[in-house]
Amino acid sequence: MNVLITGGTGFIGKKLAAALARRGELRLDGRAAPVERITLFDTFPGEDVPEDARIRVVTGDVAERPMLDRLVADADLVWHLAAIVSANAEADFDLGYRVNLTGTWQLLETLRAKGGRPRLVFTSTLAVYGGDLPEIVGDTHHLTPQTSYGAQKAASELLVADYSRKGFVDGRALRLPTIVVRPGKPNKAASTFASSIIREPLAGQEAVCPVSREAAMFVLSPRRVVDALIHAMELPDAAFGVVRAVQLPGITAGIGEMVDALERIAGRKVAARIRWEPDPLIQKIVAGWPARVSGARALGMGFQADGSVDEIIRAHIEDELGGSFVG
Amino acid sequence: MNVLITGGTGFIGKKLAAALARRGELRLDGRAAPVERITLFDTFPGEDVPEDARIRVVTGDVAERPMLDRLVADADLVWHLAAIVSANAEADFDLGYRVNLTGTWQLLETLRAKGGRPRLVFTSTLAVYGGDLPEIVGDTHHLTPQTSYGAQKAASELLVADYSRKGFVDGRALRLPTIVVRPGKPNKAASTFASSIIREPLAGQEAVCPVSREAAMFVLSPRRVVDALIHAMELPDAAFGVVRAVQLPGITAGIGEMVDALERIAGRKVAARIRWEPDPLIQKIVAGWPARVSGARALGMGFQADGSVDEIIRAHIEDELGGSFVG
Repeated sequence: MNVLITGGTGFIGKKLAAALARRGELRLDGRAAPVERITLFDTFPGEDVPEDARIRVVTGDVAERPMLDRLVADADLVWHLAAIVSANAEADFDLGYRVNLTGTWQLLETLRAKGGRPRLVFTSTLAVYGGDLPEIVGDTHHLTPQTSYGAQKAASELLVADYSRKGFVDGRALRLPTIVVRPGKPNKAASTFASSIIREPLAGQEAVCPVSREAAMFVLSPRRVVDALIHAMELPDAAFGVVRAVQLPGITAGIGEMVDALERIAGRKVAARIRWEPDPLIQKIVAGWPARVSGARALGMGFQADGSVDEIIRAHIEDELGGSFVG
Repeated sequence: MNVLITGGTGFIGKKLAAALARRGELRLDGRAAPVERITLFDTFPGEDVPEDARIRVVTGDVAERPMLDRLVADADLVWHLAAIVSANAEADFDLGYRVNLTGTWQLLETLRAKGGRPRLVFTSTLAVYGGDLPEIVGDTHHLTPQTSYGAQKAASELLVADYSRKGFVDGRALRLPTIVVRPGKPNKAASTFASSIIREPLAGQEAVCPVSREAAMFVLSPRRVVDALIHAMELPDAAFGVVRAVQLPGITAGIGEMVDALERIAGRKVAARIRWEPDPLIQKIVAGWPARVSGARALGMGFQADGSVDEIIRAHIEDELGGSFVG
């Protein structure tokens, strides 16, 4: 079984590759399928790619057809994670559309040309929701994105569903909560601070929080998102049925609550490394995202949320910091 | 004020052009704007185009940029009606995507390049809904189309909304019920029979009904859809707010009820010209469309439904048959 991960040298791609290499096999339609090759496709070679004989990195442009054709020809399963993130897609309209919508469409066309109804897991986002939202966003609430990123992901979901309905691919789309705690450096996502305010203080560095304590986000840990990506690939086709997109379960975390959890786990000195500097633009974008989302359908399909913010922070210390932090 | 109507030589385009010529002006932002030129853009020159010095027909491809640039440069307002209809888009996947999604996207890019935030009315469809539907489809129900046509229209709605949010256009999308009674000949839409079973018998011809009496559709008359298209253009930007698509109000008409109304108005002999020949494919497509749809938001915005099926049939006899029919 050869797998292709677009956006593969991003942090989720690398964690997914490591998890696949560790497991050594996938359970598809009741049978164990050994993972023979894992291709990480991205614009950048990336750092700290897991070292494993089965893992290789290929660099290129996801919206460029001849390259995609070659990669897809060789792949049995595809995780399509490549994306221009929210604030970047908002700042560079054309780039966002080219990668996030044209890129996904090209990938679907490539899979259709290959034939055999290849299985595809596509990462969408809760930014597909926006505008007037109900207290809890249900599984059948309409998509009215208020960012280009959200619009591109929502349109891509429709393409994944239609190409699946026509039998060209077996596509599954997951709407990801905000992933916390992301390792590495801040990126251009408007949500990047939600990781920074945990990650940087634990590393002995200052972090800026651009939203107030009252802001809240719907979050999922890197551990859980990797589990979800694998689970989405392993689920039978029928589990998705005619609705190919599912919003993942997560937990609602107030920013104040996250900082309190950090102080509880790592002490007052660590939590004091957060500088509060409200940024109206980020505040507005974050306020537009749903903070409470029903995970009912996903839970019924076997996807899982984290137990608590404390659990998320402890997992980060364990997985990324070798169990210790700068107190 | 120069207006451009894509798909302009289709029956709605021609009726819209005639209505605009008759009115002579539009009411935009509280001011009367005279209609100076009406350009009907379509792949075919069409028949029975209303004769008026202000109306001209231009033929070409909606997905072809240089042509669109020239037309848009000259237009102050655009109604984008051009589309490959449902059964045709289902049969020819590539053509449907090229016209219904790429075509709309190209038009949006052309309007963006022109600048000045041009006003655009885009016709979407109730085929954006599908799968498990509630008894009444509400204004905030998610879009899970079960045809490529529906997927293309839903994705286009997202583009219209995002280009509007970014200030590139002032776009308004209307989800049209099934238009009954369409004049002219049957087309490749799966819904075409709903007009045929009224139109053909009144013209002394046989019509085939591919669904049972129990099937129901959500319908709107040509008169009302033309009113809605003009109303959508005249409404202030704020009426649409962040949700740029609205489902038009209509009435739920059972097929048996429509035939009964035909018999009531035109007599038993006319209604007997309908031959019942169930077609499983058409039955399935029609059953997948919502028969009951909330018009709450649209009614609040001033859009109007027909009063009854009888009213719809009488309007057809009046507008298309000069008040008489073949008894």
